[in-house]
Amino acid sequence: MILVRGVSYLVRDADRVERDVDVLIDGARIARIGSIDARRLAPGTTVLDGQGRALVPGFVNAHTHLYQSMLKGRRDDLSLVDWCDAVTFPFVRRVLDDAWHHGRQEVGRLWSMLATIEMVRSGITTFVDMDMNLDGVIAAWLEVGIRGVAAMTLVDQWVPEDVMVSLNETKDDTVRLIETWHQVPKESPLVTVFLGPSAPFTCSEGLLRWIRERADEHDLGIQTHVSETAWEVEQSVSLTGRTPLDYLESIGFLASPITAAHGVHLTEGEIELAARRGVAVIYNPKSNMKLGSGIAPIGALRRAGAAIALGTDGAASNDLLDPFEEMRCAAMLQKVAAQDPTVLGARDVFRFATEGGAKACRLDSGTIDEGRLADVVLIDLGGAHLFRLTDEIVPALVYCARAGDVETVVINGRVVMKDRMMVTIDERAVLAEAKRVGERYA
Amino acid sequence: MILVRGVSYLVRDADRVERDVDVLIDGARIARIGSIDARRLAPGTTVLDGQGRALVPGFVNAHTHLYQSMLKGRRDDLSLVDWCDAVTFPFVRRVLDDAWHHGRQEVGRLWSMLATIEMVRSGITTFVDMDMNLDGVIAAWLEVGIRGVAAMTLVDQWVPEDVMVSLNETKDDTVRLIETWHQVPKESPLVTVFLGPSAPFTCSEGLLRWIRERADEHDLGIQTHVSETAWEVEQSVSLTGRTPLDYLESIGFLASPITAAHGVHLTEGEIELAARRGVAVIYNPKSNMKLGSGIAPIGALRRAGAAIALGTDGAASNDLLDPFEEMRCAAMLQKVAAQDPTVLGARDVFRFATEGGAKACRLDSGTIDEGRLADVVLIDLGGAHLFRLTDEIVPALVYCARAGDVETVVINGRVVMKDRMMVTIDERAVLAEAKRVGERYA
Repeated sequence: MILVRGVSYLVRDADRVERDVDVLIDGARIARIGSIDARRLAPGTTVLDGQGRALVPGFVNAHTHLYQSMLKGRRDDLSLVDWCDAVTFPFVRRVLDDAWHHGRQEVGRLWSMLATIEMVRSGITTFVDMDMNLDGVIAAWLEVGIRGVAAMTLVDQWVPEDVMVSLNETKDDTVRLIETWHQVPKESPLVTVFLGPSAPFTCSEGLLRWIRERADEHDLGIQTHVSETAWEVEQSVSLTGRTPLDYLESIGFLASPITAAHGVHLTEGEIELAARRGVAVIYNPKSNMKLGSGIAPIGALRRAGAAIALGTDGAASNDLLDPFEEMRCAAMLQKVAAQDPTVLGARDVFRFATEGGAKACRLDSGTIDEGRLADVVLIDLGGAHLFRLTDEIVPALVYCARAGDVETVVINGRVVMKDRMMVTIDERAVLAEAKRVGERYA
Repeated sequence: MILVRGVSYLVRDADRVERDVDVLIDGARIARIGSIDARRLAPGTTVLDGQGRALVPGFVNAHTHLYQSMLKGRRDDLSLVDWCDAVTFPFVRRVLDDAWHHGRQEVGRLWSMLATIEMVRSGITTFVDMDMNLDGVIAAWLEVGIRGVAAMTLVDQWVPEDVMVSLNETKDDTVRLIETWHQVPKESPLVTVFLGPSAPFTCSEGLLRWIRERADEHDLGIQTHVSETAWEVEQSVSLTGRTPLDYLESIGFLASPITAAHGVHLTEGEIELAARRGVAVIYNPKSNMKLGSGIAPIGALRRAGAAIALGTDGAASNDLLDPFEEMRCAAMLQKVAAQDPTVLGARDVFRFATEGGAKACRLDSGTIDEGRLADVVLIDLGGAHLFRLTDEIVPALVYCARAGDVETVVINGRVVMKDRMMVTIDERAVLAEAKRVGERYA
């Protein structure tokens, strides 16, 4: 059991804040919120001090690509397609070329470690990773103790031949991935599997239909890139006669809800469609800014009633996996685009980054309530940059807090970071090994 | 003397990076760069380890308002004018009301401490503070050991009567401020005085002429807000028949270079004018985003050859005094506005935040060169979020580094923070006192 004692600000969700309260975690779930007598708890209960701190739901990074943690800081002047050619494809090529059967699981485990360390240190407790050949990657999540969604990337068009794995092989891998990893462990899954058709224009209709069938068969979520760039929308129109989300609807792909990363260039009709079909749109403001992709129509999506979550995208187009900066940019980008500061506020983006993300991941987390999964983050409010003369805590967390203020992280009822020290792994050893192994692929 | 030994990445400026080199600081200036034998240095030389670290020029925050460090996180849904009414004026009213002659210097010293601690911890070594009644504020800079420009705010129009000090009193204060504080100490000034007409539309022509004369008389820089919002431009046109910078030109105010904060809504003609008159435009991307003010025409200003620096603006419209986030947003906002990621890059914004700022402040700093003022920052590159497989350091610093990576800060040849501990002041005591005193004004 874990007792978080005397939490100064318990942020149960964006709208419910309680002062000076205790939170008890039992097993993987939140057991009780209120005034709890520590003396009556089982011996060996871990006690965390909540004084001068905020306890918040763990942040959910609803769209990322972990392998890019080995590609940080490379270029900052390329649009999406050129950037794929210059940054991501050469790396993928090296990895596939050198070590498809050997080193790939080793290097995958390491980039997964790098990314998950950065995420835990930033207060992210759950994420969706779009990638392929994920065994080594997932093994790292279990080592670290972080909750992840493995969105198996599937693609059979557009991507250069030499960075594409044969489709039959990928389909086999996908089925095996589902059988091996989906809902591990069953009751409070640290690992779930999604299917990840890369984008409508990079998948044939046959592949999309295969994906829809597998998802229905195993009750899996789906994540795909939708309308990230204007170029991509043109591709879709020229290939299918329809814009991406419209096209997916036309082939029955939206029969059950999917999650759509980006949605920057959704049409008005597609915004209505997203709301009607329960599509969760994943807003990735910093990546969209850095690649010059455009500004997602978050205001219109909200008015239509669409579900929205927040993502960082990969660490080579951002280049940080930091929910605080992402929340700030999420709000500020909409404010400046509309030249109206009322369009999106701190509570909205906090909700996107917690509840919105948990729903997109189909998880029973995202708020601090009795019975929910115990994914919670203790934030140190003592820094000079967090000095406030107001009790308004959510705006302060969104606009003033930093990844470095995250002090202790509990995921699935387990303390993964304590007092800014990773407790489940040897962080220094991981960084050194990642350097040594990564350099073979650089 | 201070020796920074074996610096892994010496970033002399955005375009000049050296590997594995020593830097010697003697008095307030950089004495030597190269391979330096520590055994031949004077006893008592402070030795800092540069291994695994980057040494960069201290960042310059070319536009801020320190008092807002007591107003953080208050509101995030107000445009500039409504925000002045709801956030800043009530605070100023309380401060003026309660303690114009008594508590103001005490509370001013404390907000100045709060802001300068946050800035030092973020790698900012120099800033421009627009405010009035600055004695307590400046005293704190000398205690902390940070370099500041006191831009004395002058205003005689628009601002509500009850938050405006009598003009004669302000003019007297200004002259006294110049005589007391300008260039303290003389050789390597930690304090310089600028004149700060709040904005063209808040000053009468008579006041602007008085300011121009005083600036010429004492050879002082000037900082003013120019075209931050579309509303402000309309005010100027309705009052003077001209847009703000054009108006300043028409009354001879641009005869010597000034620094213009924001410049969001400059016209094409004003962009040319800024370049021709040597006006330094201070770009404040995060504040402009959060208040929904608009996007400064940085691309056009660069093409015209105008000088550009970077500012955070006050901590209640940002809400962080963080050059890393500001640099990232500076580049990313231009990229997304143009839907073109090539328009502004990491090196450009790094230059704005260092050399550009130093020039705007009229200081002999902003690059690491022999003879320059020793304002340098040692950045720890060891965090998982800074893991790179590339030697490109400037993009990594701009897109991946965080305030929390700033380890040691040297200003004017003095170690002000070492290993993330403030060495010149008792930080905890300052925070406690600021809470106690600040609550009287909240």
